[in-house]
Amino acid sequence: MPQTKFLLDESEIPTHWYNVVADMPNPPTPPLGPNGQPIGPEALTAIFPMSLIEQEVSGERWIAIPEPVREALRLYRPSPLVRAHRLEAALGTPAKIYFKNESVSPAGSHKVNTAIPQAYYNKLAGIKRLATETGAGQWGSSIALAGQMFGLEVRIFMVKVSYDQKPFRRSMMQTWGGQVFASPSMETQTGRNILAKDPDNQGSLGIAISEAVEEAASRADTNYSLGSVLNHVILHQTIIGLEAKKQFAKAGDYPDMVFAPCGGGSNFGGVAFPFFADKAAGKNVRLVAVEPTSCPTLTKGTYAYDFGDTAGFTPLMKMYTLGHDFMPPGIHAGGLRYHGDSPLVSQLYNEGLIEAVAVPQLATFEAGVLFARSEGIIPAPESNHAIRACIDEALRCKASGEKKTLFFNLSGHGHFDMASYDRYFSGKLEDYSYPEEAIRASLANLPKVG
Amino acid sequence: MPQTKFLLDESEIPTHWYNVVADMPNPPTPPLGPNGQPIGPEALTAIFPMSLIEQEVSGERWIAIPEPVREALRLYRPSPLVRAHRLEAALGTPAKIYFKNESVSPAGSHKVNTAIPQAYYNKLAGIKRLATETGAGQWGSSIALAGQMFGLEVRIFMVKVSYDQKPFRRSMMQTWGGQVFASPSMETQTGRNILAKDPDNQGSLGIAISEAVEEAASRADTNYSLGSVLNHVILHQTIIGLEAKKQFAKAGDYPDMVFAPCGGGSNFGGVAFPFFADKAAGKNVRLVAVEPTSCPTLTKGTYAYDFGDTAGFTPLMKMYTLGHDFMPPGIHAGGLRYHGDSPLVSQLYNEGLIEAVAVPQLATFEAGVLFARSEGIIPAPESNHAIRACIDEALRCKASGEKKTLFFNLSGHGHFDMASYDRYFSGKLEDYSYPEEAIRASLANLPKVG
Repeated sequence: MPQTKFLLDESEIPTHWYNVVADMPNPPTPPLGPNGQPIGPEALTAIFPMSLIEQEVSGERWIAIPEPVREALRLYRPSPLVRAHRLEAALGTPAKIYFKNESVSPAGSHKVNTAIPQAYYNKLAGIKRLATETGAGQWGSSIALAGQMFGLEVRIFMVKVSYDQKPFRRSMMQTWGGQVFASPSMETQTGRNILAKDPDNQGSLGIAISEAVEEAASRADTNYSLGSVLNHVILHQTIIGLEAKKQFAKAGDYPDMVFAPCGGGSNFGGVAFPFFADKAAGKNVRLVAVEPTSCPTLTKGTYAYDFGDTAGFTPLMKMYTLGHDFMPPGIHAGGLRYHGDSPLVSQLYNEGLIEAVAVPQLATFEAGVLFARSEGIIPAPESNHAIRACIDEALRCKASGEKKTLFFNLSGHGHFDMASYDRYFSGKLEDYSYPEEAIRASLANLPKVG
Repeated sequence: MPQTKFLLDESEIPTHWYNVVADMPNPPTPPLGPNGQPIGPEALTAIFPMSLIEQEVSGERWIAIPEPVREALRLYRPSPLVRAHRLEAALGTPAKIYFKNESVSPAGSHKVNTAIPQAYYNKLAGIKRLATETGAGQWGSSIALAGQMFGLEVRIFMVKVSYDQKPFRRSMMQTWGGQVFASPSMETQTGRNILAKDPDNQGSLGIAISEAVEEAASRADTNYSLGSVLNHVILHQTIIGLEAKKQFAKAGDYPDMVFAPCGGGSNFGGVAFPFFADKAAGKNVRLVAVEPTSCPTLTKGTYAYDFGDTAGFTPLMKMYTLGHDFMPPGIHAGGLRYHGDSPLVSQLYNEGLIEAVAVPQLATFEAGVLFARSEGIIPAPESNHAIRACIDEALRCKASGEKKTLFFNLSGHGHFDMASYDRYFSGKLEDYSYPEEAIRASLANLPKVG
């Protein structure tokens, strides 16, 4: 029987995170303040601990993972690298397909990889509480778990429509001791102002971010925590790709192409950047970010300075963006509904060093169901995007006879997304491509810089 | 850092199942037919393949696991043995606590361990379709997955009240290609008769069993499949305990006590019977079956011949029973709501070779939440029973200073049971102890035998 799962011992959990900045041909673009001038690290101390700010701006290639973080990660790491023999057979492809199974974390996705170090560094800095936002709930549940592990109170502003529609994600956060508020809430001035004008406001990620940042900025015992986009978040996620490289070495193989879903960019960066290190050293490996046609940031957006949030509270970051007031439709891959993208991912894409592809929703669910029927695991809708792109390549290999080695990140399971599968099976799920003129309209509102 | 997870390679998946019959001091009691006489294997050929019937009556100690079954099991096996360092610390106990993590299967519980061989043997026998029943949905989803893996059509009669209340378990079965019918259904004469009299009938496990058996008995291409109670089902589940013993050897440890939830008995038998082999050889190990106070089959029932189903269609089996017309209240650990128990488990309990304890519902959820907050994983309500009993022993060790090694089976995760956690957190969950007189009343209806 050919081997299926390539495992590592706990002792093989990486000792260092990989910082892609060290291998980028150009230095990262700086974030800008309201005056259009680069802002320094000190501007972030009101909401982040200095250790994370240092990681945010570091140019060091390797950054040590503290032992208490490695110990906490052992709850579920190393995660398996799996050869998808049954999916290969179902497709009849000569390609070899591998996936990294990040669904094994207690919260069910890769988000825990950064929640744990963020909770650790905040605890070390004497912080008592973390405030954050969550949409679909994967990030909120991850930070609730991590906060519990390090004895931090966690306050989660959950977009009201999700709070009402996803009660089980909410219960999950509560099981780990997280406090969950429907946003807009009465907990913050931002929320109270909005509710005073519109008591039935259904909330948005932009509003929830504003509430969490307000709490963090206004209380000395409270910091803010973010689940994607920023450099230090992607840094923590590189543990995925670093483990995968050790596992490919054990398998005696190496990927020709790496696929990952791309929303804010930490999923893609986490798995792809360690392979980028090899690419920068001359290795031939293609790195493909997969996004939804309904929110096509890399494939249809513009590379420009823009705000990270809807309201414009954050520093300006240079990134691919659809415009900060872009409103993505309510597709079910909540984690991929972001108008912008990680500045690091954006810069590498702009320089032609990584690739991007957009896939429509129905095709992603078709791929996810085929995966579930052959490999067992029911994937998260976000993960279905990477699976779709990987299957498309495997089918091209079938046509051409190429024996490529393909690798994707199974970033999470779909146990809390069965309502979306239900809609897919009952024919109620639709494809959605954002109209070009709507994208042009939101891009016309980009802030003027320099 | 002390080791947390004790893993095995795929090559270490056991090659044989362990049959406890070989080590029991007395031969198993035979099933009886309607005439009160022992029935032979041939009576079961209408609904089971001969290979499974042979396993049902075998006295061989070791039964080889076919290679295609081991290959399919590799999707998720071997499962980890985990040392619960954080739970130990939370309790402040000197006891060592280990658990076997069966929640890693794609369907989220140990039920897949028998679904796979059952699908395999039926496929080998030329069967095209499997019919089965499901209550909470763990068994239904496991057999849907296994049927998909071996190319069998799977028809699942799901108790109507669960069909309506647990749409996501239903979607899960459909994702793997299972056909799910609310029972009573129009698919069978049994269902049509009931619906003709009572169109709003909410169904019961007894009715669902009758529908599945009717389909299997009336169609040559269809067999019946059962998720617990029977000897061959427990046989398949012994892979849990067999792996655990290899893992304890790697950990340089051995349990003083083994805890598992006990409903039909395959969860308990699967993890405990391989340790019973050591006990029979003189080793000092205590095996504890944990049941709910709301359905206290071993602790309050009678050891007698009774039917396996409510309607009395099955052969009579000698087992601990609360009476086949016992109606357990709607507690949320659906997998433990069974009036009877495995004949093998019952016989060993009657002979004083294993122990049983009943725990109330609220205390099980309290234990499950403590477990989730320390070890991350949110357990299935069934698993919370074993966790409760294990924690109680760990607290006794704390009082006495004993450094016992405790081991329980984490039989599944609670991702599809968050509504129960929600009810627990909101104070709506209640304890329930079945009144003694009600148990006496249902026991008064036991069939007269011999």
